[in-house]
This record gives sequence, C-alpha cells and structure tokens, in this order.
Amino acid sequence: MRSIRFSSTTLAVLVAAAGLSQQGMAASAGQWSYEGDTGPSSWETLDPAYASCGQGANQSPIDLASPIPAEQPAPVFHYSAGGVDMVNNGHAVQVNYQEGSTLTLDDRDFQLRQFHFHAPSEHTVDGRHFPLEAHFVHRDPVGNLAVVAVLFEKGESNQALEPLVETLPDKAGEKVRLDSVFDAADLLPIKTAHYRYNGSLTTPPCTEGVRWVVMKEHPTLSAEQIHAFETAIGMDNNRPVQPVNARVIVD
Amino acid sequence: MRSIRFSSTTLAVLVAAAGLSQQGMAASAGQWSYEGDTGPSSWETLDPAYASCGQGANQSPIDLASPIPAEQPAPVFHYSAGGVDMVNNGHAVQVNYQEGSTLTLDDRDFQLRQFHFHAPSEHTVDGRHFPLEAHFVHRDPVGNLAVVAVLFEKGESNQALEPLVETLPDKAGEKVRLDSVFDAADLLPIKTAHYRYNGSLTTPPCTEGVRWVVMKEHPTLSAEQIHAFETAIGMDNNRPVQPVNARVIVD
Repeated sequence: MRSIRFSSTTLAVLVAAAGLSQQGMAASAGQWSYEGDTGPSSWETLDPAYASCGQGANQSPIDLASPIPAEQPAPVFHYSAGGVDMVNNGHAVQVNYQEGSTLTLDDRDFQLRQFHFHAPSEHTVDGRHFPLEAHFVHRDPVGNLAVVAVLFEKGESNQALEPLVETLPDKAGEKVRLDSVFDAADLLPIKTAHYRYNGSLTTPPCTEGVRWVVMKEHPTLSAEQIHAFETAIGMDNNRPVQPVNARVIVD
Repeated sequence: MRSIRFSSTTLAVLVAAAGLSQQGMAASAGQWSYEGDTGPSSWETLDPAYASCGQGANQSPIDLASPIPAEQPAPVFHYSAGGVDMVNNGHAVQVNYQEGSTLTLDDRDFQLRQFHFHAPSEHTVDGRHFPLEAHFVHRDPVGNLAVVAVLFEKGESNQALEPLVETLPDKAGEKVRLDSVFDAADLLPIKTAHYRYNGSLTTPPCTEGVRWVVMKEHPTLSAEQIHAFETAIGMDNNRPVQPVNARVIVD
C-alpha cells in the first residue's frame, strides 16, 4: 500500500468505515441498539467516539422536504454481480460486496462495500415513512463515504429481492452464503432522479461528511417480503429523523 | 422570555453566538490567534470546546468552486441603520448592531447582530482571495446562525465604507462610537446572486450548522481603504479554506 497522508476528517471516516464492517460484533464496547437505555437518544453517551450522534449539526437520516431544484450531474453506477454473503449483524441485515462495483459522483469513484436494510425506512419524504430502505455504502480510496438509499414501497412482489428474502439470516451474528453472486444493480430504480444532501452515518459513531443520494423512484415489494425483512431484523431499526439545520437539500 | 426547549445543536449554536459577542476579551481561556502555536492548525487543541475546528467535516471558510446551479429563493434583507459602535476585538474589527434589521432565509427571520471584517478574504472563488471580506452575522430566535459574506475587490474607493475607515480602532480592545448610526444595507451589493452552502463559524469554537450566503457581486474599495483595514486589524485574519467534503455548493 502506498503511503498516504490522512486529514483528521479522513481518519474519522476511515474509522467509521471500519466500524461498518465490524457491526457483526454486537457485544463490542459502546454497544448500542434501537430501543431503551442504549437507543438512539442515548448513543452519544455510550462512547466518547459517538459524540457526533448528539452534537453533530449534520446528521442522518432526515425528512426530505422542500428540496431546491438543481442541475445535478446524475450519479453513475458501474455495478456488477458481487454480493457473496449476507450477515445479520444485530442491527441490520447486510450483504457484503466484492471489489469491482463503483459509483461515480462528484468526479470520484466510490467502491461499493456492502448494502444493508432498514425497516421501516430511515429517511422520510414529506414526513412519510416507507416499509423498507436499502443503503448501498461506498468508499473512495481516501475513505470518503457515499451512501445511496433506495426507499421501497408496498406493492407487487420484488423478484430481484427474492434471492435475499429466501435466505435472510434471522439471528444476530448469523451469516449465510448466497446461492449465487448477487448483483446490487438489480435493486436500483431505473431513473436516476434523486435527492442529494450532506449527512452522516445513521449508526454510531454517526460520522459526518457522508454524501447521501436518495433515489426518488420507489421499487415495490410485497407484504410477505416486508414481513420477512421485519422478522429477520427483529425490531424497527430506523434512527429517528434528525434536524436539517443549515443544510440544503437539492433534487 | 417564554420557556423554550433547546436541542443540543441549538445549545451549541447559542453558546457559539454568545462567544461571538465576547470576542472582545482577547485574553480569555482558550486564547487563539491567526499564527504560531495558537494559530488555525492548533485551534482544536486549545480548548475541548474547540473540537469542531479539527474534527468537523463541515467547516468554513471554503473555496467556492464547481457550484451546482439551483433555483434558490433570494435572501431578503430588511436592514435599517443600526450600527452604533465599532470594536477591535483582537481578531477582527466589528460593528455591533442594534435590533431591528433582519435577513429572511428559508422562511425564517434572522436578526443582524454584528458585522466584521477579514483581510484578506476567508472564502476564495476558484482559488482566488479578495482583499477584504465582510461577514454579516444573523441569529434566529432559537439560536440558528446565518452569515452573509461580501467579498470586496480592489478598485474605486467605497464611499459607504468611508465612515468606518475614518474611525477604525487599531488597538485590540479599543471601542469607538460611530459618528452617525451606520446602515449595513449600504455595504450590500445590488444583485442578490449568491453561493449558498452549509458551514461553520470561521473562528473558535468553529460551531457547525451555520447557513452561509456568499454574495457573487463584488463591491470595490481603494488601495488606501484596504491598507486602513489591514493596519487596524494588524495581521492576516483569515482562517485557511477547509475541505468541502460531502457538501453541495449551490448558486
């Protein structure tokens, strides 16, 4: 590996990115959850490294309301099949991704590292929740994160989700091998219309400086598929929406 | 005063706003400067309350480059004469403002509290500095801050600035009464074209969640007027530009 100099921001994001892949260890220090004494309103108190969860002015998720129309370049997805295993890390169900799939945004290439699900959705649109939200987590070579969110609505069964639904691990710490390598491209909506804003990880350490792209088109999934995700995850794993504060949301 | 519940973010901003008006006490705890051991690269180490200066991912100032064209509502200024005294607080030359002048932005009214000057400019446009930058600092009733920046370029003498230039206090701690009540509206460019982004205070504690409006039209001032500001301030009082990270700049 080449020698690279990191800023403190970059290091914080790298630490956060490392944390993302370590969520499998649900019993680690700074243990957090979605309810009770270790729930979202207490995250900042659980570990000094989680200070941003309470003190940050640019946290995620948010309610997507009053966006400003802007001439945004479209995010460009170069995804190929790369989902190899799926883990229930006690906070979400996550598919880990092999190298080779990228998102191009702001003239940078971000590698897809993993995608995972929240039920109900974390982001809301004009105050409305959706039954499921997928987060596609990408990282550039110096540790900047970009997350693409897809909000699913109840309707027709989603065939692309079915290979995941059939093998959802429903115990914290359980990891399953997917029958065939999964292509995350199959979960993306066709249109690239999206909201763009500047936010954070939605889980501790709530690191800021994350590029958020929330797709506007909503793929469907069936009531049975929603139930399967809810059962596997075992609780509502959505952090409440955070204040927008000084941020601009563009669409 | 009515009872109001504050979020931790709001409180942080309130504390920051209070700090702004206390910059007159240059010898206070957490003393900072623009050079040497207490200069910008060390601010985060001077006081735990200054952590954002080093750890924040959404700091100001920034280089204004590659903005995204957006349909922004214009900021609306309801300024009237209200500048009563001018203080050299050891970090900048600042005109304190009486109540009654507001900026309307995001359907909120922000009161103009003070304006002050940085020489050279803190923000850059495509990497270029300007000789002087004025910051008009506004606060809404719950403590949110909005700062309007005007970048002046060298050229014709600026008659509106002349009453200030004639009485600039050139010693830290010195405060002068203005001969007549000053109207900040006289310093604003005619056009409301501007950059908008989400940033921070440019001085400790570098609190984030600040709405920044940087005007695109550049009023002029003469070489003599620039020299007067530089002499009164006594050093370059510009924080270096900070990483844009995940932020979107719209114009």
